[in-house]
Amino acid sequence: MLGMKGVKIVEVGLRDGLQNETTNLSVEQRYDLFERLSDAGIKNIEIGAFVSPKWVPQMAVSSELASMIVPDLKKSKSKVNVSTLVPNLEGMLQALEADIPEIAIFAACSESFSKKNINCTIDESFKRFEPVMKLAKEHKVRVRGYLSTCFGCPFEGKVSEAKVVAIAKRMYKMGVYEISIGDTIGVATPGQVESLFKKLKKALPVAKLAGHFHDTRGTALANILAAYNVGVRTFDSSIGGLGGCPYAPGAAGNVATEDVVYLFDGMKVKTGVDLNKLLATNAWLQPQMDHALPSKVGRVGKAKPIGKV
Amino acid sequence: MLGMKGVKIVEVGLRDGLQNETTNLSVEQRYDLFERLSDAGIKNIEIGAFVSPKWVPQMAVSSELASMIVPDLKKSKSKVNVSTLVPNLEGMLQALEADIPEIAIFAACSESFSKKNINCTIDESFKRFEPVMKLAKEHKVRVRGYLSTCFGCPFEGKVSEAKVVAIAKRMYKMGVYEISIGDTIGVATPGQVESLFKKLKKALPVAKLAGHFHDTRGTALANILAAYNVGVRTFDSSIGGLGGCPYAPGAAGNVATEDVVYLFDGMKVKTGVDLNKLLATNAWLQPQMDHALPSKVGRVGKAKPIGKV
Repeated sequence: MLGMKGVKIVEVGLRDGLQNETTNLSVEQRYDLFERLSDAGIKNIEIGAFVSPKWVPQMAVSSELASMIVPDLKKSKSKVNVSTLVPNLEGMLQALEADIPEIAIFAACSESFSKKNINCTIDESFKRFEPVMKLAKEHKVRVRGYLSTCFGCPFEGKVSEAKVVAIAKRMYKMGVYEISIGDTIGVATPGQVESLFKKLKKALPVAKLAGHFHDTRGTALANILAAYNVGVRTFDSSIGGLGGCPYAPGAAGNVATEDVVYLFDGMKVKTGVDLNKLLATNAWLQPQMDHALPSKVGRVGKAKPIGKV
Repeated sequence: MLGMKGVKIVEVGLRDGLQNETTNLSVEQRYDLFERLSDAGIKNIEIGAFVSPKWVPQMAVSSELASMIVPDLKKSKSKVNVSTLVPNLEGMLQALEADIPEIAIFAACSESFSKKNINCTIDESFKRFEPVMKLAKEHKVRVRGYLSTCFGCPFEGKVSEAKVVAIAKRMYKMGVYEISIGDTIGVATPGQVESLFKKLKKALPVAKLAGHFHDTRGTALANILAAYNVGVRTFDSSIGGLGGCPYAPGAAGNVATEDVVYLFDGMKVKTGVDLNKLLATNAWLQPQMDHALPSKVGRVGKAKPIGKV
């Protein structure tokens, strides 16, 4: 299958996961989680968001967490790449204050979602990026881009592929090094994934694209497989499937990192991540959350043959 | 993708699903479930097993259920194909008594599993099939074959592809019209699925092969996609994901019929099954079971756009 060996896993549990949980982990718990993820071999970890704690109280400790992580990483010349989500200039100033080496910006692919989520049009959100990108360039901060509702919008339903491609191109031209194509509400199926990524590949280098799938309807791994089969090599995931509650209707979140690594281990595709360490992290994390973690591999583990009968 | 339009869904919830549940549904509940599944457009439904109630008490009402279903189907010349699992001559005699138009036989692909599951070697299990197949031919009863542990054995671990292919060929030569290739313990990943089915296709017509995936590690839909991509067009599934409990470790069962139909609907591949009716069946079934049904689509439904903001 297509060039490039191995895949890159971008761990978003500390951000996209925790921001959708009712359990508000302490900064110490988050630090421990970061250490475990990093020890498991994950090289790209989003640790939080510089957003108003009024909007997202779960992200209030992001600055404090960054101050516990970033100086040590820089001192040790670690290869672990940490990032935070930044919605606007104010967030960018916090990111610079925290000396974060990478930020992520985000835009929606449907006007209704943009309006509801960040109270502005897609055009306006791109205007907000300008001063952020300018500062990022000045301070040599890498910028990743997220596009949400690429496969469907909770308000408008269908989202046109042409619109997603146009917005992705626009974001890429601003200077982001990678664009994560998000199935925010977890509606995508593999045919749609194949079709959209094929169109995106014509507009952008496929190495610059990532897949960000939510497992709301159980299709996330099938979608990852479909994206992999058309050449996508970067995938976002959350340890344990954080952000999704298997008990509550409608609440399934990011695909679980354990499940993604299990999938690729089985396909002999390198992730650089140690599944056993992820499973240990899941076992450590589980009692700290108020619900069972959705990861299926996290729940049952790898198969352990009992021995011949 | 590859010839043949659409896929065939074989509903196994009333057998493989219920035999692994602690809730023992009454024969009336099962009859209602059958009616709903059939009304949803499912054309192939396994309704039970003629096995010793000492071994599998959940299947004790299979004869009674058959007597409620089969005569009506024959009278109405229904296109719904019902079957029951038959392990041996005794079971076959019950099937003939019940006037069942189709039975299913099963063999393991690992000696340890065969020994533990049916207390005989694989060879011995094939000897048991001989009188069953003879009677089936005489009475014009169709026979489907199941192969279990095709992707891994809980005792031995790895199962050789060559062994699976050899056993599949042997079963096919006995006169079964279709062979269902089972991931009994839900360990398979797409690369393995692709590899095994490619080998099977060289030995048997692909139209005679079915995929039977358990979602223990969340990979069932990805495995179905991989099998579909190499030409497999028949898949077994259980309404709601019956047979698997999302609360209990290690207990995830058959992939859910709703999730499979959602996947193929999204891919514009015809199943002939009405997802809305399946979702209504899930909602009806859920309160009768002692745990949440694993189907993710069953839990959240299809996406329903709220309307533009």
